[in-house]
Amino acid sequence: MAHAKPHEPALSHGDLAGRFRAARALTEALAAPLSEADATIQSMDDASPTKWHLAHVTWFWETFLLRDHVAGYRLFDQQWPFLFNSYYEAEGKRHARARRGMITRPSLAEVLAYRAHVTEAMEPMLGREELRCLIELGIAHEQQHQELLLTDIKHALVQNPLGPAMWDGTSNSSQARERHWHAHPGGIALVGHEGESFAFDNEGPRHRVLLEPFALAGTLVTNAEWQAFIDDGGYRTASLWLSDGWAWVQANGIAAPDYWDEDKHFTLKGWQPREPDAPVTHISFYEADAFATWAGARLPTEFEWEAIAQSHDPAGGNQLDAAGPVAPLGSDSLFGDCWQFTRSAYLPYPRYQPPAGAVGEYNGKFMSGQVVLKGASCATSRGHSRASYRNFFYPHQRWQFTGLRLAKDA
Amino acid sequence: MAHAKPHEPALSHGDLAGRFRAARALTEALAAPLSEADATIQSMDDASPTKWHLAHVTWFWETFLLRDHVAGYRLFDQQWPFLFNSYYEAEGKRHARARRGMITRPSLAEVLAYRAHVTEAMEPMLGREELRCLIELGIAHEQQHQELLLTDIKHALVQNPLGPAMWDGTSNSSQARERHWHAHPGGIALVGHEGESFAFDNEGPRHRVLLEPFALAGTLVTNAEWQAFIDDGGYRTASLWLSDGWAWVQANGIAAPDYWDEDKHFTLKGWQPREPDAPVTHISFYEADAFATWAGARLPTEFEWEAIAQSHDPAGGNQLDAAGPVAPLGSDSLFGDCWQFTRSAYLPYPRYQPPAGAVGEYNGKFMSGQVVLKGASCATSRGHSRASYRNFFYPHQRWQFTGLRLAKDA
Amino acid sequence: MAHAKPHEPALSHGDLAGRFRAARALTEALAAPLSEADATIQSMDDASPTKWHLAHVTWFWETFLLRDHVAGYRLFDQQWPFLFNSYYEAEGKRHARARRGMITRPSLAEVLAYRAHVTEAMEPMLGREELRCLIELGIAHEQQHQELLLTDIKHALVQNPLGPAMWDGTSNSSQARERHWHAHPGGIALVGHEGESFAFDNEGPRHRVLLEPFALAGTLVTNAEWQAFIDDGGYRTASLWLSDGWAWVQANGIAAPDYWDEDKHFTLKGWQPREPDAPVTHISFYEADAFATWAGARLPTEFEWEAIAQSHDPAGGNQLDAAGPVAPLGSDSLFGDCWQFTRSAYLPYPRYQPPAGAVGEYNGKFMSGQVVLKGASCATSRGHSRASYRNFFYPHQRWQFTGLRLAKDA
Amino acid sequence: MAHAKPHEPALSHGDLAGRFRAARALTEALAAPLSEADATIQSMDDASPTKWHLAHVTWFWETFLLRDHVAGYRLFDQQWPFLFNSYYEAEGKRHARARRGMITRPSLAEVLAYRAHVTEAMEPMLGREELRCLIELGIAHEQQHQELLLTDIKHALVQNPLGPAMWDGTSNSSQARERHWHAHPGGIALVGHEGESFAFDNEGPRHRVLLEPFALAGTLVTNAEWQAFIDDGGYRTASLWLSDGWAWVQANGIAAPDYWDEDKHFTLKGWQPREPDAPVTHISFYEADAFATWAGARLPTEFEWEAIAQSHDPAGGNQLDAAGPVAPLGSDSLFGDCWQFTRSAYLPYPRYQPPAGAVGEYNGKFMSGQVVLKGASCATSRGHSRASYRNFFYPHQRWQFTGLRLAKDA
Repeated sequence: MAHAKPHEPALSHGDLAGRFRAARALTEALAAPLSEADATIQSMDDASPTKWHLAHVTWFWETFLLRDHVAGYRLFDQQWPFLFNSYYEAEGKRHARARRGMITRPSLAEVLAYRAHVTEAMEPMLGREELRCLIELGIAHEQQHQELLLTDIKHALVQNPLGPAMWDGTSNSSQARERHWHAHPGGIALVGHEGESFAFDNEGPRHRVLLEPFALAGTLVTNAEWQAFIDDGGYRTASLWLSDGWAWVQANGIAAPDYWDEDKHFTLKGWQPREPDAPVTHISFYEADAFATWAGARLPTEFEWEAIAQSHDPAGGNQLDAAGPVAPLGSDSLFGDCWQFTRSAYLPYPRYQPPAGAVGEYNGKFMSGQVVLKGASCATSRGHSRASYRNFFYPHQRWQFTGLRLAKDA
Repeated sequence: MAHAKPHEPALSHGDLAGRFRAARALTEALAAPLSEADATIQSMDDASPTKWHLAHVTWFWETFLLRDHVAGYRLFDQQWPFLFNSYYEAEGKRHARARRGMITRPSLAEVLAYRAHVTEAMEPMLGREELRCLIELGIAHEQQHQELLLTDIKHALVQNPLGPAMWDGTSNSSQARERHWHAHPGGIALVGHEGESFAFDNEGPRHRVLLEPFALAGTLVTNAEWQAFIDDGGYRTASLWLSDGWAWVQANGIAAPDYWDEDKHFTLKGWQPREPDAPVTHISFYEADAFATWAGARLPTEFEWEAIAQSHDPAGGNQLDAAGPVAPLGSDSLFGDCWQFTRSAYLPYPRYQPPAGAVGEYNGKFMSGQVVLKGASCATSRGHSRASYRNFFYPHQRWQFTGLRLAKDA
Repeated sequence: MAHAKPHEPALSHGDLAGRFRAARALTEALAAPLSEADATIQSMDDASPTKWHLAHVTWFWETFLLRDHVAGYRLFDQQWPFLFNSYYEAEGKRHARARRGMITRPSLAEVLAYRAHVTEAMEPMLGREELRCLIELGIAHEQQHQELLLTDIKHALVQNPLGPAMWDGTSNSSQARERHWHAHPGGIALVGHEGESFAFDNEGPRHRVLLEPFALAGTLVTNAEWQAFIDDGGYRTASLWLSDGWAWVQANGIAAPDYWDEDKHFTLKGWQPREPDAPVTHISFYEADAFATWAGARLPTEFEWEAIAQSHDPAGGNQLDAAGPVAPLGSDSLFGDCWQFTRSAYLPYPRYQPPAGAVGEYNGKFMSGQVVLKGASCATSRGHSRASYRNFFYPHQRWQFTGLRLAKDA
Repeated sequence: MAHAKPHEPALSHGDLAGRFRAARALTEALAAPLSEADATIQSMDDASPTKWHLAHVTWFWETFLLRDHVAGYRLFDQQWPFLFNSYYEAEGKRHARARRGMITRPSLAEVLAYRAHVTEAMEPMLGREELRCLIELGIAHEQQHQELLLTDIKHALVQNPLGPAMWDGTSNSSQARERHWHAHPGGIALVGHEGESFAFDNEGPRHRVLLEPFALAGTLVTNAEWQAFIDDGGYRTASLWLSDGWAWVQANGIAAPDYWDEDKHFTLKGWQPREPDAPVTHISFYEADAFATWAGARLPTEFEWEAIAQSHDPAGGNQLDAAGPVAPLGSDSLFGDCWQFTRSAYLPYPRYQPPAGAVGEYNGKFMSGQVVLKGASCATSRGHSRASYRNFFYPHQRWQFTGLRLAKDA
């Protein structure tokens, strides 16, 4: 976890400070179109209110940088850590996750004042070399919550029968592409992160893996392909599904990706016509796996995906600015359209150890029951992802921009 | 259901119009201290957001007065009836009750504009004699939601660990009173509403009931008396409780009235010291019944309460203005401190028939599983209650200002 | 609670002893067709295993007669009271109701040995005058469990896709009867039990009630009438239903009485064709109320039913012997076809006090949330019911033989 | 999947037939001490009744051998496949898993007659070479249900406050052993099954894996060590636990392994004193992982375990006969004491394909959300397990004989 990736110019302190300020500003810009009411509500336990995201990332800076590294720092408010700690047991008791939508006070304006206060208090820290890793972590953390802010508010807005839009405009159009395959001969590959550039602890240690020959699709599965799966009875054919997945389909009456309704789908620009050639999104792992079985293919392992992606890594390739999603960078949509399910369980790499202290809870304690997703979505902050990045969700969750890319044995 | 109670001057049309305007204004005044966030959230299925109350009562006027009785009236918004119908099946499908807190749009300002629009559109209706009953119903309906607005926002605010206050100030102080008893010789009594003044359909028909000799306490049970019940192990003594009540105590870990914490209780003025001599509130029917058993007494029937109250009926005795609760009128706190549990199930009176049409759903369909409460609380609108008034809640509910008054056999 | 009803010869000690022995023998005869497996399982929380019924009634005799009134009596087994106490808090902790089906040991044979032991130990008690009331209570208690044994095993057997029968044979046939009405002029009536014959505590004190003129149907609602209700969309018409009832219909997909399937219904003789002219059974209070509304009538109050029944009381009119249900006695099927819902909530009569001690928990603590049913069913033991009898169930329950008789205002 | 493991003499047809008959007889011998009541009940959704196990394995033979491979075979009973199909979607609808305890008919005697019928009908099949694989599968399947029969009846018996025993006698005593470690240098290892001997589909294809240097404990974690974990506050220390595990501990009030109570634990011989030096059992994956963290070690991967076990594989090493558990074979308790958690998710091996047809549902569809366990327990049938065997359960389940063996990086 340090200064720079090998293949890009080393970042100076100025770069770090600039990226800090840009990240703080982007979070606020993303929240700007929302009313105080929009920013307050919580639509399900998995999602958090916008205002909570705005405050939580600020609590992260205040706690792990200002409180821990500034002598005599006084908390902005003594009671707010109880409200805005997410899941750090080492930081003490906290407000129940499922009740975050009850926090009408502090107001949005007060939370924005908190943000301004902490952002300013951080200024003298930005040049302290010994804090560089923590600051990089804080920026990455803020970026993760930028994406969650968008996926969570999308989930909140769709609850409203009026189907309100957060942004004006219409969806980008997509163009059909023939599926092509990237073959890989197998053998020993090096995966995981190493070096001085920033990465999360769960991306390392870099280590060798043994791959069998395989091929990875050069395209994402599209809405049109998914419609064909539906039309072929995919959601009614038990033999395509994992047992847990079939139980989930039956119990929840699942018959299409989330946010689909007839020929429209819900977006941050409201209800829009569905582009046939756009990548399918808002599917669960169970659906991705069933589709792959139906298609006579399979999901890649996280290592297969990474091995192909290493030669395409756009050095921070994508995706988000305050004006909304932009065209993805990176060939073959590896980064920037949607997170792509792998068949890999989210488990520790060999010799992985979580960091000491409360930040050790960041990733390690979630290593059971979840699956790894690779890539980045249209809601991922530009420069946030990389080939070694490991996103993770439970197999039934689908409120993220999740999609899939097929793989097959060679 | 008509013009006036016998013991007060008949209300002219101007009176009706004035009361309509006052009711509309009071609802808005009650909501005024709340932020848009406060007004949006829903803390439990039983409670509704302030904004929803503001809109729902307006929908009631728009639907049953303007739509039904103004030729060519155009709805303020075609989609809003779906959002703001509460439970009228005859009015079609509607938004799920448990998801009212998801309605961030329309905004509070838009709902206030809706209110202004409907209030103004109602003006020409206020003198139409054939609509008088419906207008009286609409006013009473709006008053009921004024009380619910307060009890619901109280429940929402207490969810916040910061314990925010809606109003400034401190609780009124109470004075201890010796318990005295009103004896009644029994015999045939007339109960229920009759005559030209307004009453809800469930208050009639007026009919004879046969009472055995009894006595009704002249005071309400106080916080100090409740503390004695707790100190004597009331919540741990199965023999005091109805079977359903004991199961409820065990399943929910109940050990005190709602909103109690140590020697404080939560109020619309935030956390306040508990006055020993103030009436206990926020108890369930189960608790009221157990207390009465512990005290060697019992709850009155609704008819016993009404027989005593008929001679104390303050002709619209209480209690609410925009500045918050005021001192109760009416001797012996029959009206204006808290709703008082009876042991009577909420059932139809002999020959009761619900009115035709959607408004027939107002009261009649709730006549199972609930208990009758009499009186009025500190949150009840002034002039809303009367001796024949029948409030009703499920036996476990306690987010209303509910208390008790003891009775005993003579 | 004592020796005899006025209109029958006083029962001698021999009578009491004979009835005791007959009751004990009947319980065993009812269980005789069941395998040990049948007798062990529990199909829902509301129902209990046959073996548990066999043991529980025996525990009742052992506890309240032998233990409490025989010096030096040693329990048959020290651990069994924990297993076979039903709900008497005063008798200490007990096995969870929902886990009664886990008690494979003691075996059925051991429980039958327990029965024989206690039945024999009871012999010297049967002539003790001071115990007469308790013995009457024990017999009535055993009779109640005879009915529950049948309704509970019926519910258990229908869970089996093979639809096994407990008894051979086919259903009795029924004959159509024109509906006639018993008119009542209203006025003061005396209801409730009084005198030396046995009755449960909840049937008293006898007291005056004031009735308005009404009429009670002389027939029960039949399967054919219920089919007409279904055919007319009764289960899909919200306006017919109480609000709680409609929610129950929607949540559980209710579309017919329990145990109905196409033109058959499940009985203790297995799946049988449904007799159009037989009384409908296995309906909930919600269904009974909706049917009455649909039929332009209403349910009677418990007092209306009793006032009519007083002149028809068959002095112990019905219904059960070991060979299965027999033709009901009593004109107009008041007793012996099905329990008949009233619109009365199950509440204490004026000046009711539960008895002291653990048996005080028998009836009184259930006086909330339930409704009163009158009459007796085909599964009620002969001689068990009477005009003042008050059965009670929750408004959604329908595994008993429950039906309805209409009433209307005069 | 075929004739023999390389290191043992090829099994002749006679051997197969003998093993078939032995397996059938052992299942019945295991059930012999149980009453019909014991054999009927179901204590939780995860467990099945003994009678159901007896019938289900018979259904398996009848369906996949007799029905599919004997021209004109008539089912023993046309309705029973509905009752006794477990989870094979391709075999059609079936009785709800959670309601298996409702099947009191057919009786235990009828199910035993079904067994005898099918066992005899199988005789002519046992020499048909083309069915050998299926017969091996059927034997392995029957053996798996032998273990489940024991773990399920143990769970059923402990529900009974009387704590009944299935077998007489007392627990075997255990001897303390110093922990020693098996070091492995890492590198490429071959794992998974290959060759003519029987194995389940999920054990293959055999493939290469890359191991880092590690060491695997030569002993299992003992009750005494687990007690030290408890005494050190293990169940109250959030930092030791995976996030899902900590939530599970909190929600369920977990404070010890299942079946522990003070210094005793429940066994098939009833409540017995706990041997400090015996391997701990009945722990969940979450507990195993927390213990390993507390101990400064980790769980092995399934491949690490297998690499060590390959040199210890007892060629069918263990463990069960009708008299109850016997001393484990195999050094270091790899096989025969308890199933040992790995940190590996249960996922398909490279190029794994489930077999065609209904038997393809045997293992493959469960490859999400579960973890791999290696070894064999005291309840595993002798000869059933091997180094490549992959058992799998959800991370919270602990009614199996589950324990753990530590690993560490070299």
